[in-house]
Amino acid sequence: MSDIKRVVLAYSGGLDTSVIAKWLEVERGLEVVTFTADLGQGEELGPAREKARAMGIPEKHIFIEDLREEFVRDFVFPMMRMNARYEGDYLLGTSIARPLISKRLVEIAHETNADAIAHGATGKGNDQVRFELSAYALDPDITVIAPWREWDLTSRTALIAWAEAHQIQVPKDKRGESPFSTDANMLHTSSEGKVLEDPWEETPDYVYSRTVNPEDAPDAPEYITVDFERGDGVAVNGEAMSPATLLAALNELGRKHGIGRLDLVENRFVGMKSRGMYETPGGEIYARAHRGIEQITLDRGAAHLKDELMPRYAELVYNGLWFSPEREMLQAACDHSQDKVSGTVRLKLYKGLASVVGRKSPHSLYSEAHVTFEDDAGAYDQKDAEGFIKLNALRLKLLAKRDLG
Amino acid sequence: MSDIKRVVLAYSGGLDTSVIAKWLEVERGLEVVTFTADLGQGEELGPAREKARAMGIPEKHIFIEDLREEFVRDFVFPMMRMNARYEGDYLLGTSIARPLISKRLVEIAHETNADAIAHGATGKGNDQVRFELSAYALDPDITVIAPWREWDLTSRTALIAWAEAHQIQVPKDKRGESPFSTDANMLHTSSEGKVLEDPWEETPDYVYSRTVNPEDAPDAPEYITVDFERGDGVAVNGEAMSPATLLAALNELGRKHGIGRLDLVENRFVGMKSRGMYETPGGEIYARAHRGIEQITLDRGAAHLKDELMPRYAELVYNGLWFSPEREMLQAACDHSQDKVSGTVRLKLYKGLASVVGRKSPHSLYSEAHVTFEDDAGAYDQKDAEGFIKLNALRLKLLAKRDLG
Amino acid sequence: MSDIKRVVLAYSGGLDTSVIAKWLEVERGLEVVTFTADLGQGEELGPAREKARAMGIPEKHIFIEDLREEFVRDFVFPMMRMNARYEGDYLLGTSIARPLISKRLVEIAHETNADAIAHGATGKGNDQVRFELSAYALDPDITVIAPWREWDLTSRTALIAWAEAHQIQVPKDKRGESPFSTDANMLHTSSEGKVLEDPWEETPDYVYSRTVNPEDAPDAPEYITVDFERGDGVAVNGEAMSPATLLAALNELGRKHGIGRLDLVENRFVGMKSRGMYETPGGEIYARAHRGIEQITLDRGAAHLKDELMPRYAELVYNGLWFSPEREMLQAACDHSQDKVSGTVRLKLYKGLASVVGRKSPHSLYSEAHVTFEDDAGAYDQKDAEGFIKLNALRLKLLAKRDLG
Amino acid sequence: MSDIKRVVLAYSGGLDTSVIAKWLEVERGLEVVTFTADLGQGEELGPAREKARAMGIPEKHIFIEDLREEFVRDFVFPMMRMNARYEGDYLLGTSIARPLISKRLVEIAHETNADAIAHGATGKGNDQVRFELSAYALDPDITVIAPWREWDLTSRTALIAWAEAHQIQVPKDKRGESPFSTDANMLHTSSEGKVLEDPWEETPDYVYSRTVNPEDAPDAPEYITVDFERGDGVAVNGEAMSPATLLAALNELGRKHGIGRLDLVENRFVGMKSRGMYETPGGEIYARAHRGIEQITLDRGAAHLKDELMPRYAELVYNGLWFSPEREMLQAACDHSQDKVSGTVRLKLYKGLASVVGRKSPHSLYSEAHVTFEDDAGAYDQKDAEGFIKLNALRLKLLAKRDLG
Repeated sequence: MSDIKRVVLAYSGGLDTSVIAKWLEVERGLEVVTFTADLGQGEELGPAREKARAMGIPEKHIFIEDLREEFVRDFVFPMMRMNARYEGDYLLGTSIARPLISKRLVEIAHETNADAIAHGATGKGNDQVRFELSAYALDPDITVIAPWREWDLTSRTALIAWAEAHQIQVPKDKRGESPFSTDANMLHTSSEGKVLEDPWEETPDYVYSRTVNPEDAPDAPEYITVDFERGDGVAVNGEAMSPATLLAALNELGRKHGIGRLDLVENRFVGMKSRGMYETPGGEIYARAHRGIEQITLDRGAAHLKDELMPRYAELVYNGLWFSPEREMLQAACDHSQDKVSGTVRLKLYKGLASVVGRKSPHSLYSEAHVTFEDDAGAYDQKDAEGFIKLNALRLKLLAKRDLG
Repeated sequence: MSDIKRVVLAYSGGLDTSVIAKWLEVERGLEVVTFTADLGQGEELGPAREKARAMGIPEKHIFIEDLREEFVRDFVFPMMRMNARYEGDYLLGTSIARPLISKRLVEIAHETNADAIAHGATGKGNDQVRFELSAYALDPDITVIAPWREWDLTSRTALIAWAEAHQIQVPKDKRGESPFSTDANMLHTSSEGKVLEDPWEETPDYVYSRTVNPEDAPDAPEYITVDFERGDGVAVNGEAMSPATLLAALNELGRKHGIGRLDLVENRFVGMKSRGMYETPGGEIYARAHRGIEQITLDRGAAHLKDELMPRYAELVYNGLWFSPEREMLQAACDHSQDKVSGTVRLKLYKGLASVVGRKSPHSLYSEAHVTFEDDAGAYDQKDAEGFIKLNALRLKLLAKRDLG
Repeated sequence: MSDIKRVVLAYSGGLDTSVIAKWLEVERGLEVVTFTADLGQGEELGPAREKARAMGIPEKHIFIEDLREEFVRDFVFPMMRMNARYEGDYLLGTSIARPLISKRLVEIAHETNADAIAHGATGKGNDQVRFELSAYALDPDITVIAPWREWDLTSRTALIAWAEAHQIQVPKDKRGESPFSTDANMLHTSSEGKVLEDPWEETPDYVYSRTVNPEDAPDAPEYITVDFERGDGVAVNGEAMSPATLLAALNELGRKHGIGRLDLVENRFVGMKSRGMYETPGGEIYARAHRGIEQITLDRGAAHLKDELMPRYAELVYNGLWFSPEREMLQAACDHSQDKVSGTVRLKLYKGLASVVGRKSPHSLYSEAHVTFEDDAGAYDQKDAEGFIKLNALRLKLLAKRDLG
Repeated sequence: MSDIKRVVLAYSGGLDTSVIAKWLEVERGLEVVTFTADLGQGEELGPAREKARAMGIPEKHIFIEDLREEFVRDFVFPMMRMNARYEGDYLLGTSIARPLISKRLVEIAHETNADAIAHGATGKGNDQVRFELSAYALDPDITVIAPWREWDLTSRTALIAWAEAHQIQVPKDKRGESPFSTDANMLHTSSEGKVLEDPWEETPDYVYSRTVNPEDAPDAPEYITVDFERGDGVAVNGEAMSPATLLAALNELGRKHGIGRLDLVENRFVGMKSRGMYETPGGEIYARAHRGIEQITLDRGAAHLKDELMPRYAELVYNGLWFSPEREMLQAACDHSQDKVSGTVRLKLYKGLASVVGRKSPHSLYSEAHVTFEDDAGAYDQKDAEGFIKLNALRLKLLAKRDLG
């Protein structure tokens, strides 16, 4: 690592990454380039610029970018086309953001002639893996610096002392221990640690920041529609929207109705279980809507294959393998199925529930003629069922003859 | 079929199967044995006996049995151990009952020297397949008679006329067309047909019979616990219960809180899509609770393998292949994982939501020591993460070196 | 079926399909269009034209086409990209030809204003399923006529009598029973039935027609090379060849060295087991060569995903679901991986064995620097392995602490 | 690691592990317990005892054990029941031996109050992972010492100098560089490194030690039978044998006929590709025989599920996850299918080929009555096929109606 001169840091503007920026300079003798992405985390980015300047980062090395549309269009939507949920429930809100950040870190490294990137993820979590696998997949020669795995500032006290010794402002609310830690972007807010560490204890209400408590949500349900074209959402309530605008609109609806809260004990890639709390208001609505439109537009063979491939896909995204041949192969299979996944889904939002109540499509495969209990005008010959059953049964009969005597 | 003399009919006591019973006798010259199972469908079975008697079935050929415990213990619970949901959502309430009914039909056929069984499922649905594949798997020489695929009583008018011509009582409410058809057992009530046939139209509230509308559910949440031992539920709120009693208790809780309603367009095994409405109040709570206890007691490798096998398992159950080597193999894999799936899950029930809010177990794999942000006393060496990431990245780096130049 | 006027028949020129042609005319009152495909089965097609004329088929309704290049390029090669083998061994030589024949049957039906197609496959086999599923997938309104499932000419005697009564020439060697039946195309020759029906009896040597007995093959091995580009074979021994030419060249090599014989008991889609004998001389060499080039050009993630998807893909092809969304999805996943599957494989052919002995590629992922026991100049840090193992072990340790502690 | 006092070393008696034994004593100050397993590697174990004594290991700390029966019965056979082959070909001969060695290392550590185990695998290979994951899964508190990852004796010269400096005998043939390295046990011999490192170069004949060159094998084929009971081999040529005896007998047959050579470029778990040469003479015959008996005794559903699960299973074994919940779950699924996998397989052995030519079983599912082209006496009604095809086609027709207009 001795040849490294310049490093691009994933910089939030918060205390921890400010300390990292300074530490890279002071302890490692590196020039620091900061990269701050707006992924819709709901924080202003102006202060990040101010703080970077205050640390003496030259203007041309302060990168602040609005990646919201790219995030939703090229990461969230493809993942949603697969109906991905990790371990049955988790909509992968943090996992899906990391590859995009890494992609920009690497690109900025190339633009600025930096030889390394750095991130503020700890050595216990998944995010370090996601950052780094993505980075290595995009530039095999890049060096990754993960200060949390290396330094000795592992206690809050040590960190704050170091910050103060190096003229980094420590906001009042960061002086004490935070009762939990969070990550946020357009898709979700996650919280974990401290008050959440006992999986038997209910998550305190103050942990939630993106949704009202269902008990405080409106007493009347609200009906909405989501339109899809070729597998991706394009409109809410009939109003055409860009990907990020659409997700923002659903987030607002989900927030209001208390939708998308999840309390989960999950298995980390690094080997231990952790307990997380997730709020994915718009994502939960979107995920249900997407399944709704697939119900009438996807053939059974395609739908079942997708369901079988999904857990693997979700695991890959969770483990940080977005930029891997196998994720791309699964995506290719998935995307092949989405050509006719177009139409409108109607949902009822009510106190934490987002229920599909109607779906229609110009490409619907649902045939009332075939399914009706009424006269079907010859669409379906019930006698075909006998042969169908007989031949499906044949191997079972041969088996029974052998085994049951 | 000319040698068939006696047939065991799956008999509900309703108009349709009464007509079938008489039709088998009159048109086919068969002695009819009736079998009526109590699977917790919520109807009294006394009338079924009366009606069978009224049709002249001898007492020894009227079989009425309470199968609730067997149903939940040997069919519902094993399926729940797999977290089975068909097409992402459906808890397979109808699918899982058919094999048990077929099993008893075949056993009673053997007891009564009957050579055939008969059922009242139509030629368009899945149930015929489920009844018949199960029957053939248990007795390869059995004959199955499916009158709905054979006779010409396919209109309501014709059926009622035939019934009246043969002294079968037609209840007033069966004279007109029913606005939808239902199937019910302990696990769920399903409804489909007629008013539900347009998948864009919301299910009318009068279709629901097992749950209150979430909007009418109590305004205050209710907290409950479910205890598991070796993968199966054993207690609710600390009170030990048999399988069927436990499911009944959860059904009551679910009904009260409007839990387990599902509006689905699904893919039938016979090839068309159909729109169904399901109410699975206790099942939905149970399914979530089971996932909750698995979260802390199941190793990641076991959990992920189960998730990958689940869609196939659900498809097998849906398609009527309960009694197949492959379902049994998947069950063996699943059951192998459930030895330590014991402990307590706490859920919050509120207006349609059943949310896991806590879980604990004497066999918990969750380790606060490993996951904590605090000092972990050496449980985990963050430096290990670097090697872990480096070697996971190696193949991606080699790939990038090749593909990115 | 009463409206059907014209039918396109898959016509081999042999006795059976000649009888079918006449039967469709005489018994069904249909105009018959014949379609004879050259798939490299090794028979001259001139006689088929003569026989069709002799039956009075008008010239414009006699279709004889050389489909060899399309067959290999669009069907065999894509399947080989997946390394497909059914039930571990069978290279799907018959299965892969049926969809192409059906495709042309349907297209010719459209060109000639025919409303139906017909084939000569029996009601016990897989081929009827493959022909018909393909046809329905390409034209949902087509009618398929399968005389073997309908007529009463089910004994050889009856068939020959009918043929003679209708002025169809019966070749001498068709008068007696054939000791087995065969299907052949460029990819393979299959044989089944009669002398092969006892799976304990070794296949008599006279059944083989495409390969010499390994015992009679040359005593000296022969070394060859096969070049691949983007997953497909493009040259043999350095000589560029079209797909069909290449397969023909490998067939000749395989024939000479006795390669590609397979004696298999397999599971038919219609439910019973059958015993078949296959000769796939060039296909076996090609399949091994393709795996050989993948060994150095495919990433592990891609390779393992392909291996996991392959059995499903092979089952779909075997079952006649070539034209299905799920086969296409799997193909999309597979094809995504083949971009860099280019290079040269060297094989040793010797008395039934086709062994990969060398492979090289401009896109090789094999890195001597990484794998060498010698000094690797820092390509790989052995200390990384410790962290890699420690974190992979973490969940197992936690499990052991619980279960063994 | 400072508290470690005694270590159990996997000791072959060769130079490398002798150096390790001394190094652990000299450099680490540990008491060394040696464990030498007879897994049928074909070396005498007496010298290992002598050498251990010569290094001053007390008699009670020299463990030499014949594990051949346990190895074949509890490791090789279960794996063969799954038809496991890694990356399409490799029969996992090295992979499957490591967990057994680790198991005994851990057990001996417990017996001798040792706190650590040690092995001689390098930091670049899979074996370190297999040893260590197995050990940690069996004792989460064990310490594993892997000198090759730690010491500086990484060149041959340094190692030999150290050996001589510490009175370890260096055999003459170990003074120079070996042209490749090998691992051997009853199941196979593998070779890799040096002369094998260029994957384009054919493996020189002198590398092979367990099989004759097919070109030198007998000119006449030899026919043998293998009997199976419940999935495991029990007799060769009608002679009942224990698992290890049976494998030895097949090894002898395979050696003679040049069977089971494999030249492979494979993907290591640690991320790079390596080129290996494997000889698995008896294993190759056994694997083919097992598939042969399954062909007639396994139902299609079971067979196809096994084929789909196999690649994952093979990957787990290869990666060292034998002692993992997911491998055990897959084994449970597999083993559930083997109850009736009994009978006799006949194979022809000839110049590298082991071909199944016949199979019979009291539990055969093969039904000549169903498959015959002759009159089947009503076993199968060909008309059933029409309904079977029609309903399998229904979804494809609906799809075609939508997509093709």
